Amino acid sequence: MEVRASISHHRSAYQEIEIIDTVPFGRSLVLDGALQTTERDEFTYHESLVHIPLLSHPLPRRVLIIGGADGGCLRRVLQHPVERVVQVELDIQVIEACRAHLPGIAGGAYEDPRVELVIDDGFVFLQGCSDQFDAVLVDSTDPVAQAARLFSPDFYQTVAQRLAPGGLLATQAGSPLLMPRELLACYQAAGQIFPLTRMYHATVPSYPGGLWSFVIASAGPDPATVPGTALARRLRNLEAAPWHYTTQLHRASFQLPGYLALLLDSGDNRDLSRHPICIQ
Amino acid sequence: MEVRASISHHRSAYQEIEIIDTVPFGRSLVLDGALQTTERDEFTYHESLVHIPLLSHPLPRRVLIIGGADGGCLRRVLQHPVERVVQVELDIQVIEACRAHLPGIAGGAYEDPRVELVIDDGFVFLQGCSDQFDAVLVDSTDPVAQAARLFSPDFYQTVAQRLAPGGLLATQAGSPLLMPRELLACYQAAGQIFPLTRMYHATVPSYPGGLWSFVIASAGPDPATVPGTALARRLRNLEAAPWHYTTQLHRASFQLPGYLALLLDSGDNRDLSRHPICIQ
Repeated sequence: MEVRASISHHRSAYQEIEIIDTVPFGRSLVLDGALQTTERDEFTYHESLVHIPLLSHPLPRRVLIIGGADGGCLRRVLQHPVERVVQVELDIQVIEACRAHLPGIAGGAYEDPRVELVIDDGFVFLQGCSDQFDAVLVDSTDPVAQAARLFSPDFYQTVAQRLAPGGLLATQAGSPLLMPRELLACYQAAGQIFPLTRMYHATVPSYPGGLWSFVIASAGPDPATVPGTALARRLRNLEAAPWHYTTQLHRASFQLPGYLALLLDSGDNRDLSRHPICIQ
Repeated sequence: MEVRASISHHRSAYQEIEIIDTVPFGRSLVLDGALQTTERDEFTYHESLVHIPLLSHPLPRRVLIIGGADGGCLRRVLQHPVERVVQVELDIQVIEACRAHLPGIAGGAYEDPRVELVIDDGFVFLQGCSDQFDAVLVDSTDPVAQAARLFSPDFYQTVAQRLAPGGLLATQAGSPLLMPRELLACYQAAGQIFPLTRMYHATVPSYPGGLWSFVIASAGPDPATVPGTALARRLRNLEAAPWHYTTQLHRASFQLPGYLALLLDSGDNRDLSRHPICIQ
């Protein structure tokens, strides 16, 4: 991707944080060399991560976000009629870099009185937490290195204990092309804990290969089959019209290309011989 | 995209033809600097271009392909119970380069006795043709330069005259992100001629932004709403199981991200201010 300029670049205690200006997608956040979000297409990713779980729930009042430093996830959650949002982010310096150089992604979300920002490890926070949430959204870096724990059965067990009845977990699950093993491991880990686990996908043009995966899990109704009329009714409560999400796309996003369905059905996280485009 | 090696490179009377070996996608065809197809993900594109129209038709016996030099489209058409396939390609040197360096994409398709290969301009061929086809598939380069005529109302008028009752046209329609104006023009041109025109999409990882558009048009049934049971029954006649196509994905692929639906609904091919990720 052609880079026009480097806007800021420093190391925090956790990672290398860069803001770059790219020709195709405008300003972008890069952590440890991996593109996280861009001004021009962040809406495709954040609307998918937020609106699909929150509109699958009849009335999400209490939401927990793990990660999501750029504020794009938080901004979309606040468009729903929520009462309280707790966001737990490990690295305050990523929030500061995004607020300084990518202010449009969060908008005024961090100033909203319904928001409680906690700087902490998401897993540690959840283990010490006794609150209940209607939705837990994991907007982390990719399922490797320090974020790998946020994709483990132990983490999902802890999330399950903090979900109110009918509550949902949704997590970004990385690139099905670059990290198919990690996606499969995430899907299987959630499947060990939750009665219902599904993958859905979105095209995020700035991400390698364009294809991105999300895993959603619950002990409640199936997010893939919420009636269109219910989705449309809930969508009318949203404060801003989405650019990417539609109620038809909601259900379509659970229909996977055949090679990804095969990956998830294989039940074997070592054999990728049937996965035709693992671009590792 | 990281290139491992240049395999072949020459100019024909029509274009610059390169075969390169890329790290993520293997060997690939590049025409006038634009990536056309790769060994590793050609199936996502070709299955979308072929299986969606041919499985939307109750019994496609006679198929015309315009372009498609690499043979991937032809190979998928021959998996259906067709009686005759005419392929009209302008540039025999692209066919020769692909047969020499990308033989897996066509497989043995060009040797199939049902195939009639014509080296000619597709539009000129159609104007002089009196045959009837159940499907016309346009697998051309992007809707600019020499291929622009294959996206014009005049061309679609000529196609419509050669379609048997219930016949379908399907065309690749370029990148909705790089060429939204051209996609809109194609959609509107087909809409001037055919009673029913729809866009569908697929994720083709090697293409810029990953998102690719197709336009399908007919005077017959709506390809977006063919019953799943009919699709499944027709799919059983296919000689090879698809890797990308599924009957559920068939219908899902007509559900567009909101920003693309807005583009097509705008009815104005100059104002792209509401198209949030035009990566030109």
